[in-house]
Amino acid sequence: MKSNSFVLRGDLCDSRSPQKLRTLEKGYLVCIDGLCAGRFPVLPEAYADLPLIDCAGKLVIPGLTDLHVHAPQYPFRGLGMDLELLDWLQARTFPEEAKYADLTYAQAAYGKFVHDLRRSPNTRACVFATVHRAATAALMELLEDSGLVCAVGKVNMDRDCPDALREETSASLEETRQWLEETAGRFERVTPILTPRFVPSCSDTLMKGLGALAAERGLPVQSHLSENRGEVELVSRLRPDARFYGEAYDRDDLFGAHGKAIMAHCVLSGEEETALMGVRGVFVAHCPQSNANLASGVAPVRRYLERGLRVGLGSDVAGGVHMSILRAMADAIQCSKLRWAIQDKSLKPLTVAEAFWLGTAGGGEFFGRVGRFEPGYELDAVVIDDAPGLPPSPLSVAERLERAIYLAEDRDILHKFVRGRQLF
Amino acid sequence: MKSNSFVLRGDLCDSRSPQKLRTLEKGYLVCIDGLCAGRFPVLPEAYADLPLIDCAGKLVIPGLTDLHVHAPQYPFRGLGMDLELLDWLQARTFPEEAKYADLTYAQAAYGKFVHDLRRSPNTRACVFATVHRAATAALMELLEDSGLVCAVGKVNMDRDCPDALREETSASLEETRQWLEETAGRFERVTPILTPRFVPSCSDTLMKGLGALAAERGLPVQSHLSENRGEVELVSRLRPDARFYGEAYDRDDLFGAHGKAIMAHCVLSGEEETALMGVRGVFVAHCPQSNANLASGVAPVRRYLERGLRVGLGSDVAGGVHMSILRAMADAIQCSKLRWAIQDKSLKPLTVAEAFWLGTAGGGEFFGRVGRFEPGYELDAVVIDDAPGLPPSPLSVAERLERAIYLAEDRDILHKFVRGRQLF
Repeated sequence: MKSNSFVLRGDLCDSRSPQKLRTLEKGYLVCIDGLCAGRFPVLPEAYADLPLIDCAGKLVIPGLTDLHVHAPQYPFRGLGMDLELLDWLQARTFPEEAKYADLTYAQAAYGKFVHDLRRSPNTRACVFATVHRAATAALMELLEDSGLVCAVGKVNMDRDCPDALREETSASLEETRQWLEETAGRFERVTPILTPRFVPSCSDTLMKGLGALAAERGLPVQSHLSENRGEVELVSRLRPDARFYGEAYDRDDLFGAHGKAIMAHCVLSGEEETALMGVRGVFVAHCPQSNANLASGVAPVRRYLERGLRVGLGSDVAGGVHMSILRAMADAIQCSKLRWAIQDKSLKPLTVAEAFWLGTAGGGEFFGRVGRFEPGYELDAVVIDDAPGLPPSPLSVAERLERAIYLAEDRDILHKFVRGRQLF
Repeated sequence: MKSNSFVLRGDLCDSRSPQKLRTLEKGYLVCIDGLCAGRFPVLPEAYADLPLIDCAGKLVIPGLTDLHVHAPQYPFRGLGMDLELLDWLQARTFPEEAKYADLTYAQAAYGKFVHDLRRSPNTRACVFATVHRAATAALMELLEDSGLVCAVGKVNMDRDCPDALREETSASLEETRQWLEETAGRFERVTPILTPRFVPSCSDTLMKGLGALAAERGLPVQSHLSENRGEVELVSRLRPDARFYGEAYDRDDLFGAHGKAIMAHCVLSGEEETALMGVRGVFVAHCPQSNANLASGVAPVRRYLERGLRVGLGSDVAGGVHMSILRAMADAIQCSKLRWAIQDKSLKPLTVAEAFWLGTAGGGEFFGRVGRFEPGYELDAVVIDDAPGLPPSPLSVAERLERAIYLAEDRDILHKFVRGRQLF
């Protein structure tokens, strides 16, 4: 029997559907070879010989997925937040990202990022690195060693950024191919994802080259979409061929036609863009805290859910300050309430159940069968000790989940399992 | 020499004005008999014999003031957040507050609240208790023992609440007088504040009686104002004699004419109400997180500042989940950005400096000369160890403050001083 077969006892909570929580107090979660074999109120005889990890009285939830995070921005989170997106990129982001040309610096900074991500309730992440090939490979190695499952992208940029970061178009494509070659087959848990930063940073030629690469190798793609008014206006000037921002990606084969695509933000996506995201199966990475910090607004997540779009949550460090997707759930609920109160009464606020679904099953789908305690799903689980601040009257598991979303900190995470492997 | 005379060495940051931070790296903050004697780049000879508390490399900021917090709601923070204000009061708040008729329950629950408040970066608070006289006195005693400086109010309610909490009008006034008698002269740091819950819970007779008491004894008052649309509509039906919500308090002498008045929220205050708050010197307790959680909206704090109103921050536990006023600063900035982005481009977002001012000097003014490192001010100070997550490049003190606002947790608070007394 492999070591990632076991039984976990605790108070289980996952999603039945985007709208419904499913809880099982004093339940048994069975893991066989890293996959979930089911959740049971009484442990079936067949599993009686498996090792039991007893987390009685603790909250056990699926591992969380961060669909959008910038690893090199982690050192300056919480700084320069009085700026809007485009100014903030120039003042804070680009100068920091330029430092990752130095592999020693990159290894130290990425080491800290990976250390903290490992201690967080997130088990999966889709990560932007920088343009630097060697540093990106180093990040992948650190993540592989951490036991987390991640998609990591070397960023592409050939315009509208400081010289220190700007790539020549052909070199950008060549470096990307070389990065794919060099890292191919090296990792069990870390996979590459094509990462054109966003339209303002990528010439048409670069975008088309990356689109061809995506189509040729069936690679996934991650980028930014319709985050901020200044950015959307800039894109409409840069890409007169596209009727809306997302169509620019789509014309270049970077919008999910050949592999999965994650588009971060989608704060200002209109009807046509929303419809095309639905058709292409694009994942929306909703990043509520970043959209507040950078004064972008609040994405119409309720509408995306109603239209059946794929939606998950992103921390967007360092546009967002906090890495935990529990915090992103709370932020998503709060921001949706403000949007309802002051912008648009037609879209009801997100519920706790919906935000929880976004951070578990919604984002988890990018990685396959991930984010629920269903038979056949990869078993990612987080055990939270929510006892310290519990009120004197007993709470239901669903109530404890709500409380944990608002209050749990990384130090309250007792254990974390990824694909059935116990990280701590 | 009294023990609350000392020199504190560290990286000092306070407010020069609502718009301007003032920092002093490697500075000396001098405390004589609990009062600030100044801040110095080099320690003057005259203070050379005072005990030195060396916090080199740590961030030293004024203690924070929470202008609005409900102590009995602390046990259920983070629960029932999918409800709006009036429903949430009925479903969550009133049933919990009813338990404080039991003094044993109250002492245990308030003990936990006071323990956590003491560990927070807040040094002062304006606190709602419940209608219960004995439990309110017990809360005052616990707060006194903690070393914090607080204004505490026995709540008054004689309508529109469950029987278990509803007071008879005359009994409500009588209990209030008795509470004032019983607690008079007992505390050094805790003072009473009249606390009509809000207009919907208080008959005209009760309001007038409390107003007379405020006028008679020059007592301060705290209540709620213009938080939520349903509440404002209810008040306009209940009080046809008042042209706007705040005028109802003013007609009953509860709006700052005879003593300080704190009005929590002011999300929906119009021109006339704003003008009257200015005339009366009312303190606005801005509670951004609560206003998001209860889907109320975002108060126009920028306008209040431009009109010269007194404004501070409130956690509004348990409408807000987090007690730390550092968190309230971050929330205030984020919410003001969303308000700017999606509601009203005429009011610019709050800056870090402004949010910091609100949480220190703005709210501190309620307690007198509090919230700045100025000679003659009462010395409240918080020492934050912000080193653990600092980025590799050195930061200015102002940058470190911004980072701490977004990231510092209670465990990062190394020392806390209130009126020059070291709490830990």
